[in-house]
Amino acid sequence: ESISIPDIKAGILKGERAKLAKGITLIESNAAHHFELAQELLQSILPHTGKSLRIGISGVPGAGKSTFIEAFGTYLCSLGHKVAVLAVDPSSSVNGGSILGDKTRMEELARNPRAFIRPSPSEGTLGGVHRKTRETMLLCEAAGFDVILIETVGVGQSEAIVRGMVDFFMMLALTGAGDELQGMKKGIMELVDGIVVNKADGDNLPRAIKTRSEYSRILHFLQPVTKGWMSKALTCSAVTGKGIDDVWDMLQEFSETTKQSGVFEDRRRRQSREWFHSLINSQLHQLFYKNSTIKQLLPVLENQIMAGDQTITKAVQEVFQTFLDTFEKK
Amino acid sequence: ESISIPDIKAGILKGERAKLAKGITLIESNAAHHFELAQELLQSILPHTGKSLRIGISGVPGAGKSTFIEAFGTYLCSLGHKVAVLAVDPSSSVNGGSILGDKTRMEELARNPRAFIRPSPSEGTLGGVHRKTRETMLLCEAAGFDVILIETVGVGQSEAIVRGMVDFFMMLALTGAGDELQGMKKGIMELVDGIVVNKADGDNLPRAIKTRSEYSRILHFLQPVTKGWMSKALTCSAVTGKGIDDVWDMLQEFSETTKQSGVFEDRRRRQSREWFHSLINSQLHQLFYKNSTIKQLLPVLENQIMAGDQTITKAVQEVFQTFLDTFEKK
Repeated sequence: ESISIPDIKAGILKGERAKLAKGITLIESNAAHHFELAQELLQSILPHTGKSLRIGISGVPGAGKSTFIEAFGTYLCSLGHKVAVLAVDPSSSVNGGSILGDKTRMEELARNPRAFIRPSPSEGTLGGVHRKTRETMLLCEAAGFDVILIETVGVGQSEAIVRGMVDFFMMLALTGAGDELQGMKKGIMELVDGIVVNKADGDNLPRAIKTRSEYSRILHFLQPVTKGWMSKALTCSAVTGKGIDDVWDMLQEFSETTKQSGVFEDRRRRQSREWFHSLINSQLHQLFYKNSTIKQLLPVLENQIMAGDQTITKAVQEVFQTFLDTFEKK
Repeated sequence: ESISIPDIKAGILKGERAKLAKGITLIESNAAHHFELAQELLQSILPHTGKSLRIGISGVPGAGKSTFIEAFGTYLCSLGHKVAVLAVDPSSSVNGGSILGDKTRMEELARNPRAFIRPSPSEGTLGGVHRKTRETMLLCEAAGFDVILIETVGVGQSEAIVRGMVDFFMMLALTGAGDELQGMKKGIMELVDGIVVNKADGDNLPRAIKTRSEYSRILHFLQPVTKGWMSKALTCSAVTGKGIDDVWDMLQEFSETTKQSGVFEDRRRRQSREWFHSLINSQLHQLFYKNSTIKQLLPVLENQIMAGDQTITKAVQEVFQTFLDTFEKK
């Protein structure tokens, strides 16, 4: 297989889906020689990125994320937008599955020529998935997708990670016994710009309205996650379509408000900076913890600490000096 | 000034306050030659540590932390306990003050021969304050204090840091317009084993009871922070003393339950391990960010990233290779 970066780049800029898919596969590849090519591709398309509205969508399993994204994405396509759906799903590397792996979940949207659905990268550490999803987002932007939906199941740190790569973070909520305040379980209330109570239809409608007002009340007590934006709670029904347009109105209002105040661009810059430093941090971590001398020494020191035979500060001093010595020997 | 570690150690084990204070001053010292002595002292008293109940107390300014600690500490002393009060206050290094600096806040407790009050270390990075407070706690345990209260004002990460060094984490809450759910602002609801609504007296009593039940309701929806322990909300009055005994009953029940299940000891072991790794991490961080070559290169790369001239992954690669090269030149 020969890979031509100028060819892939040209295809992506023309919005060719096959070339976009090829570019993403390159980014997701774990092969060392693909890494350099992928970076070359990214570097070349950088000037064409950044023009989408990046939206994170979270919610516990059963909150109706796929039916919502199907309905919402289809609605956006009907307005003339181009919609890309990506996922951050750290669980996929564990169980081999992926939240978007089963494309049949979004049959209608998957067939829409204005939509592009890409499952979560199936391998890699959480940091790796994180990097690949971010870079995939950039390729999608270069291919002309102007709305990016990034879905997460909310396992581990995934919500904070998605919050760090999107402009607007949305939580899909359910109604039902004991579930009204489910979102608080993971402390994501502090991350959201908007809460959408789904399944506001039929018998469920009164409960959905009640749940929405509970969330509104809680949001009222929290400091806004986005300066100058009061986080909102809405209801909608992915089944009847009612309220789907309200969600988009909210997003447009958010986009206008924050672009005017400069908060939108500030956040993007800060996100880049934080991403840069978090990658540095993960490299430092690897350098230390993958060092073979350290790997042998750490469990010994940990056992001494746990047994109360060694002070922690002393142990850190010892392990760190050992680490530095392995370099000086080079 | 000559410092004899065996002398300080012997004094601490006998519960001599002057020697305890001398040991703490040694630990808080930033002088390099004191560091080794402090570690020697800690190493020697390690077998005599760990026998207290470690309690974190958080709450926004105005929640009545000092009046509560005064009343609660005095009550515990009357039961025959020995109580040490420490503080983690990252703001103290900024404004030069300290939440416990003004001992007159707790006049009665400060005069009690069974109590020991130590202000927050006034200098150092947050990580440094963290280390010193932990080590001070160990000295207090060796000196026979069996209840340690660690106070925090809840600035920045201080609540998570205190959670990482105590057995039980308590939030003091206020009643009053708009304040009912104040604790949620900082996401600490996920950290607490118990919430104490203070100032449950006089005209304020009905509101305090209402606030308590609001918190109970919220706690009900959250996953317990301590396995096998359902986080509780209580009311008390530091002024009338009503409910102070209920707080201690709750703590004893917590201690018995978690010691029986093994959760108590598990957490202590995990806390030691996490502290060890967090100190390693902060050392790695310093090694990298204080490197003079890196200091020059970083702003250049950051500007390129922000301007969209450079991919983040590439920038990380470059800065990291530069970092490694500075070692190989050694």
